[in-house]
Amino acid sequence: MRSFEMKNRTCTEDIKSLRLITAIKTPYLPDGRFDLEAYDALVNMQIENGVEGVIVGGTTGEGQLMSWEEHIMLIAHTVNCFGGNIKVIGNTGSNSTREAIHATEQGFAVGMHAALHINPYYGKTSLDGMVLHFQSVLSMGPTIIYNVPSRTGQDIPPHVIQNLAQSTYLAGVKECVGNDRIKEYTDNRIVVWSGNDDQCHDARWGYGATGVISVASNLIPGLMQQLMFVGKNPALNSKLLPLIDWLFHMPNPIGLNTALAQLGVVRPVFRLPFVPLPLEKRIEFVNLVKEIGREHFVGTQDVQVLDDDDFFLSHDQ
Amino acid sequence: MRSFEMKNRTCTEDIKSLRLITAIKTPYLPDGRFDLEAYDALVNMQIENGVEGVIVGGTTGEGQLMSWEEHIMLIAHTVNCFGGNIKVIGNTGSNSTREAIHATEQGFAVGMHAALHINPYYGKTSLDGMVLHFQSVLSMGPTIIYNVPSRTGQDIPPHVIQNLAQSTYLAGVKECVGNDRIKEYTDNRIVVWSGNDDQCHDARWGYGATGVISVASNLIPGLMQQLMFVGKNPALNSKLLPLIDWLFHMPNPIGLNTALAQLGVVRPVFRLPFVPLPLEKRIEFVNLVKEIGREHFVGTQDVQVLDDDDFFLSHDQ
Amino acid sequence: MRSFEMKNRTCTEDIKSLRLITAIKTPYLPDGRFDLEAYDALVNMQIENGVEGVIVGGTTGEGQLMSWEEHIMLIAHTVNCFGGNIKVIGNTGSNSTREAIHATEQGFAVGMHAALHINPYYGKTSLDGMVLHFQSVLSMGPTIIYNVPSRTGQDIPPHVIQNLAQSTYLAGVKECVGNDRIKEYTDNRIVVWSGNDDQCHDARWGYGATGVISVASNLIPGLMQQLMFVGKNPALNSKLLPLIDWLFHMPNPIGLNTALAQLGVVRPVFRLPFVPLPLEKRIEFVNLVKEIGREHFVGTQDVQVLDDDDFFLSHDQ
Amino acid sequence: MRSFEMKNRTCTEDIKSLRLITAIKTPYLPDGRFDLEAYDALVNMQIENGVEGVIVGGTTGEGQLMSWEEHIMLIAHTVNCFGGNIKVIGNTGSNSTREAIHATEQGFAVGMHAALHINPYYGKTSLDGMVLHFQSVLSMGPTIIYNVPSRTGQDIPPHVIQNLAQSTYLAGVKECVGNDRIKEYTDNRIVVWSGNDDQCHDARWGYGATGVISVASNLIPGLMQQLMFVGKNPALNSKLLPLIDWLFHMPNPIGLNTALAQLGVVRPVFRLPFVPLPLEKRIEFVNLVKEIGREHFVGTQDVQVLDDDDFFLSHDQ
Repeated sequence: MRSFEMKNRTCTEDIKSLRLITAIKTPYLPDGRFDLEAYDALVNMQIENGVEGVIVGGTTGEGQLMSWEEHIMLIAHTVNCFGGNIKVIGNTGSNSTREAIHATEQGFAVGMHAALHINPYYGKTSLDGMVLHFQSVLSMGPTIIYNVPSRTGQDIPPHVIQNLAQSTYLAGVKECVGNDRIKEYTDNRIVVWSGNDDQCHDARWGYGATGVISVASNLIPGLMQQLMFVGKNPALNSKLLPLIDWLFHMPNPIGLNTALAQLGVVRPVFRLPFVPLPLEKRIEFVNLVKEIGREHFVGTQDVQVLDDDDFFLSHDQ
Repeated sequence: MRSFEMKNRTCTEDIKSLRLITAIKTPYLPDGRFDLEAYDALVNMQIENGVEGVIVGGTTGEGQLMSWEEHIMLIAHTVNCFGGNIKVIGNTGSNSTREAIHATEQGFAVGMHAALHINPYYGKTSLDGMVLHFQSVLSMGPTIIYNVPSRTGQDIPPHVIQNLAQSTYLAGVKECVGNDRIKEYTDNRIVVWSGNDDQCHDARWGYGATGVISVASNLIPGLMQQLMFVGKNPALNSKLLPLIDWLFHMPNPIGLNTALAQLGVVRPVFRLPFVPLPLEKRIEFVNLVKEIGREHFVGTQDVQVLDDDDFFLSHDQ
Repeated sequence: MRSFEMKNRTCTEDIKSLRLITAIKTPYLPDGRFDLEAYDALVNMQIENGVEGVIVGGTTGEGQLMSWEEHIMLIAHTVNCFGGNIKVIGNTGSNSTREAIHATEQGFAVGMHAALHINPYYGKTSLDGMVLHFQSVLSMGPTIIYNVPSRTGQDIPPHVIQNLAQSTYLAGVKECVGNDRIKEYTDNRIVVWSGNDDQCHDARWGYGATGVISVASNLIPGLMQQLMFVGKNPALNSKLLPLIDWLFHMPNPIGLNTALAQLGVVRPVFRLPFVPLPLEKRIEFVNLVKEIGREHFVGTQDVQVLDDDDFFLSHDQ
Repeated sequence: MRSFEMKNRTCTEDIKSLRLITAIKTPYLPDGRFDLEAYDALVNMQIENGVEGVIVGGTTGEGQLMSWEEHIMLIAHTVNCFGGNIKVIGNTGSNSTREAIHATEQGFAVGMHAALHINPYYGKTSLDGMVLHFQSVLSMGPTIIYNVPSRTGQDIPPHVIQNLAQSTYLAGVKECVGNDRIKEYTDNRIVVWSGNDDQCHDARWGYGATGVISVASNLIPGLMQQLMFVGKNPALNSKLLPLIDWLFHMPNPIGLNTALAQLGVVRPVFRLPFVPLPLEKRIEFVNLVKEIGREHFVGTQDVQVLDDDDFFLSHDQ
């Protein structure tokens, strides 16, 4: 599907220059449907604090728990409401090539500026198959490839990326393997975003990364903006590390979901299999907020320790 | 789902004032998928000729042959590319209340300006059930109710519409029963669009109709604009009637699809159960174009009589 | 998709000989999902009273309110539990040829004995399109064509049926237009089931119909069995007509759903847009049961007049 | 959804005693749809050679590349055609709890004898979340839990299994971590099937495993039956190891798919992202067949080395 109206199309170069992209949280209503009002408020907070792009329905946004219909709708909604102010990158990746093709066609048709693509997790495939998988979607528009072996069970080796970099649509790589891998790419002029909040400061200022695709920026967009734009700042980085460690001590987005609920910016609703962090960790978060400063976090309500009974678990939508 | 970003929301009054709305054709690629490039060109021709709104995925646009995923994507695409220039009215109606609710939520979430809703066809229901069906969706945003008993097997009686008119979201009725029924509504200050191209001139100038939701305007948007805006014009109306009769001598959009293919603005691809008109009718169309004047029709290629072999029939998507 | 294991396949002749087929009700749980326990009990009552086949997900079974996933699952479930005792005819028809093809492939893959197919309702098409629509599915297995213009808005004319009758897979026609039309077919050795309970006695004994596809047999399977098997019985027929009139005074299956709930054999749950009959009609039903005799109806509980508050309306599944 | 007809229900004990279960291959037509004729032939070969159960739509059967509609249809088809001769275990697991619940309900509704469930891969979750995920489906019927950290990125620790073992529906564990882990379970009377063909002989005869859920048995069902039933046989085991190494040198089912195509029992059609093994590996397979003996493999045609051009890659279904 090709669109005659190309005026909204972002060129790949526009994506390559983004320094701070948030893997945005998807908030829910108590019945498990999307809470679009809360979502719109979250995206607005990102824009107001200098974030330049959002990943819609990433692993942080729990794309794997959405139907494709919901997923494409959320991309379209984000484009419609915020596409003029922030780059909208749809996670239209899948371990099924058919699904990835179909979702990516739809995502670009509804106006997303770029696609995020994962290698086939769980089912996995050979490297030849991996290349064909990515090539099946790379011709559709600007694309970021996402490498996270701890989730997929399979590393995307550099030679695969080098191969794909021949396409003018490859914007770059979201890399979670570490800063040495990042340097290998940036030495070869391949754009990289760190996929690890704890390493992104060093990646940006010491290893050539263009920026970060961040989870922490859901909470502290302004501080992450400083970290990526203002210059080397090991003091700020150190100050944030305890929060980042807390965020990732359990599989993301369990920490993020718990944190945003306690900041009062999303309802305390989880889609299974995600469940809230236990009480002692919820108390830790309130202390971390106090140490860093409530004013640096999204939302305006007092941060609070929620009770077990405050949370809803949903498996209906 | 409620959206925080209401700036794009059209108020019901904006819908009530539209005089010319096109039930836009959905063009296909040979494999049966949407041909978005041709679609965008069609919508642009509508805008350039003064059409104020489009129905996306109506019976003319073959919404009943789309998956909901395709359908919502097409609404989102239209909003994204043309929402600033034309009102986008999504046909999110269904004979299943559940589907109508879900699609209408999604349609408004991706930015459509209004919804078109049908009474439950085929399965039908009681009048109490019909009212509940419409009330289930009427609170979501501006709504046009569509009455076409020749398709649904069941008339929406005026007292049902009077009941629904208490909602501030009821924009009006697309009425196909005839001009006396239209007058019954307009006498009671209910907005009506004629759903019959052959009656719309009289409906507009003699029975109080606000305008038309038109099939013919796919072909001759400028002439339909004259008919609805410039004033009573029985000569023009008479001139168009042979074309309109031709368009509807078989179930719509068989004639429209054949015509647009022969005008060279869409590929000659049909989704089954629709098939092209037979050769003698295709020849008739070329003669009608010559009588009315090629310049009044969309597209710039010479109109041609296509051969049977030029057409593709698809049942794959 | 062809199956190697043909041992379960019913030949078309087996379908042609069925005299009493029930368009079986789909019962729901309060959350709107299928109540399979109640369903299995209903089907068992049919088998015990001599019914030879069931239509799964017909208009009576509210197939138009099911997702295809639910629909195929219910066909598969019925085959798995009862396929050895009763013929399972899946309503895999649709107004979309693509959907009809896909559902029919799936239905035969899971073991249904025959398919029921409707002409394209609501969207409609030309007679050429109608023939192609039916031909697209007729090669897959034994097929019954269903003609009900009051729902579809379009009659299937006899010459279309004559054309399709060249296929060895055409089992016959479910005809609702009337007994003269039935005679036109049976004179030409085309098998017909009456689709009107009020006409089926005469159709069977006076116009050559093989039998009936019945709604009333959900309630009184044993009496319908007498009507179709034992011989001409105008007294019994007359005795049943008030019940049949009551069943169809509003669009089916509103009456049936209300009746089965009051007989205590299904939960009083409706999927919108269907709603229960009003109180005075519910009282009428109880009187009808008493006149005909509770023992002739399915279930063993006392028939009761339910209150408005006893009913659930669902639009969630 | 509960079924009244429980006569087909397998009790958990029947599942616990199975020694040889095949994770059955799903064959495709050139257009990417299921090739049910080839599938039925494959299942028949399994039954004839003593295999007692099949996993339908496992990772070997490429369940992750199916729509749920296809997946449930294949389970239903297998039950309908073969349910009397072999236990049908549906892989209705998912990393989405909602999907797992829905698919498992449907699978049991269409008659599957047991469900296979995976922990949430890719998205992952906390151990509390993992337990809730499994508990959400464990009440529906006999269940096998599948632990394969190399695919999921997350081990299911023994204390989670011990917890779930309190349910009478836990049939056992398909364990890929190794034979020491297996022994830890079998010492505690938890039933285990080895998920590694290269370790299954030792697991069965030395570590208490009940049997194997095998990939290799797609190819050599009779030999795998010997390995699991007849008694300790290190000679046979050693003879098979080169074939097993070959099968798993790339992510499964790439080797299996290539092998079955070269044996002439399935069409050489791959769903992307899977692609055939390269030529040198295809030659190796033919040599392995000759060493072990063609007569021990499924099919009756000569094994052949296919050319690159013989293979179809599909991403359409």
